[in-house]
Amino acid sequence: MRYFITGCAGFIGSSLTDKLLQAGHEVVGYDNFSTGQVEFLNEAKKSPHFTLVQADLMDRDTLTKAMKNIDFVFHMAANADVRFGTNHPHKDLEQNAIATFHVLEAMRANNVSRIAFSSTGSIYGESQVIPTPESAPFPVQTSLYGASKLAAEGMIQAYCEGFNFQSYIFRFVSILGERYTHGHVFDFYKQLLEDPSKLTILGNGKQRKSYLYIQDCLDAMMFAIEHAKDKINIFNLGTNEYCEVNNSIDWICNYLNVTPEKTYTGGERGWIGDNPFIFLDTARIRELGWKPKLSIQEGIMQTIKYLKENTWVLEQRA
Amino acid sequence: MRYFITGCAGFIGSSLTDKLLQAGHEVVGYDNFSTGQVEFLNEAKKSPHFTLVQADLMDRDTLTKAMKNIDFVFHMAANADVRFGTNHPHKDLEQNAIATFHVLEAMRANNVSRIAFSSTGSIYGESQVIPTPESAPFPVQTSLYGASKLAAEGMIQAYCEGFNFQSYIFRFVSILGERYTHGHVFDFYKQLLEDPSKLTILGNGKQRKSYLYIQDCLDAMMFAIEHAKDKINIFNLGTNEYCEVNNSIDWICNYLNVTPEKTYTGGERGWIGDNPFIFLDTARIRELGWKPKLSIQEGIMQTIKYLKENTWVLEQRA
Repeated sequence: MRYFITGCAGFIGSSLTDKLLQAGHEVVGYDNFSTGQVEFLNEAKKSPHFTLVQADLMDRDTLTKAMKNIDFVFHMAANADVRFGTNHPHKDLEQNAIATFHVLEAMRANNVSRIAFSSTGSIYGESQVIPTPESAPFPVQTSLYGASKLAAEGMIQAYCEGFNFQSYIFRFVSILGERYTHGHVFDFYKQLLEDPSKLTILGNGKQRKSYLYIQDCLDAMMFAIEHAKDKINIFNLGTNEYCEVNNSIDWICNYLNVTPEKTYTGGERGWIGDNPFIFLDTARIRELGWKPKLSIQEGIMQTIKYLKENTWVLEQRA
Repeated sequence: MRYFITGCAGFIGSSLTDKLLQAGHEVVGYDNFSTGQVEFLNEAKKSPHFTLVQADLMDRDTLTKAMKNIDFVFHMAANADVRFGTNHPHKDLEQNAIATFHVLEAMRANNVSRIAFSSTGSIYGESQVIPTPESAPFPVQTSLYGASKLAAEGMIQAYCEGFNFQSYIFRFVSILGERYTHGHVFDFYKQLLEDPSKLTILGNGKQRKSYLYIQDCLDAMMFAIEHAKDKINIFNLGTNEYCEVNNSIDWICNYLNVTPEKTYTGGERGWIGDNPFIFLDTARIRELGWKPKLSIQEGIMQTIKYLKENTWVLEQRA
């Protein structure tokens, strides 16, 4: 198979690129390196089956040309910054919604009709139904990030109906593991590296969050694409559990053998739009036959191990 | 109050403009006249309280300047063409999703924080729950139109959360009545005017559709804005009934006293993405205290009466 991966230098995109290359597939990777890391493609670049196109998804000509002779598109590129959405509202619209439109149009121009899309549990807003299934009541958006992913999902679905595309829409919890570069665990680790004696926590620390280990995430996507055959296939991806922000702090501190003084900024939300309880119902993909190998705690341990061995990633992001 | 109305020369926008002017308010109307009709503003233009800005919502500078000293925005401008969405996919994205983003940003720049938005029952896709309530299961989009309205809704909601806006989101069934310029009734009337001996019907005629009379639609919006006080207020608007396409044909033919030979193109859908059964649950706005004055049949009669007396509108549209 010849795969096209947008965001191929990102956390998930680069991990997927490596996995597909290892399985003997061809990969055309597309990235503008706005947040992607050149180093994440070190392995991929050694493969004769990997082609890298360094360009922006706003550049429709380059995108359309790059997508020649492709069998399947993984659209993983995104502005994944939930927290600072209100600082630059155009960013989510452009990089998530309009970029997705460009991907769909490039597919149409090249007669490519199969797409997998990295959506998010944020799309459920603050769901009243927890754990939240794919068929939860019509959500109300609480972040520009969620809204832009919702817009992208809707367009993909409409292309399935209007242009006979087939789509796999994956609503992720927070993904972590090797190459993880933003989120709670990243922020805490970075703080503790700079000063192990203190830790500032946004909110009251009681926010309940869900995480999934990157290799489990990749396995789940490949499993769903192999086994689900509808025109539109929507799956929540996560583990069967959640943890408190305070739990993850304890695990990290134990692992690092530090006992920082904790300061809580207070309130049940870490920032405007922060969801105090994210827990997705993953019965649909479990019933298809998939389950994760690592627990949340194990995933966090893998992440800290990776950050310890790759301190350079801590300097790449604000 | 000083209102800003996008799409002020359109079917709903112009009717709303007249209504607000009659109630003694000031109105700044904004329209690019791509589908709006100059004639629909004949009354408004006589009022000293009406200001017309002829410009496109893609022109952010003009939009931002036009929105000075506004208390409330009615965002009614849209590409309302559900059927031909797949002929020009960028149109829905641009005129519905991106245009809405521009409206929201212009509001933010002018410290305007209250908005009403004309959304659509199409946003529910082909709902399994009928009549369909606002809290129906997370829908799957079946049209680019629905997807673009979903994108707009999501952004508006995110602005309420992120920038403390207040919003009124109205999910309309098909609106008809005076100034109605597209849809089933328009198409049938136009065909019968050209040749009363025959009528071509897309689909099998058994599609079940819902309609609401324009004055009832306007009353419902004003009622909701007056009585609902949440940050985000979402209401289905429609009557408590539906009719078959064949019913509306019979009513139209009886009214016109014609007996055309009917040809059905067949299938339960009139076109790709046509929803064979639209019926919204309007309990939420009914419980607030509103109800429509006209039945679907009465609304259709008013519409045919209007088209008979205003044949010029039939020549304005393809």
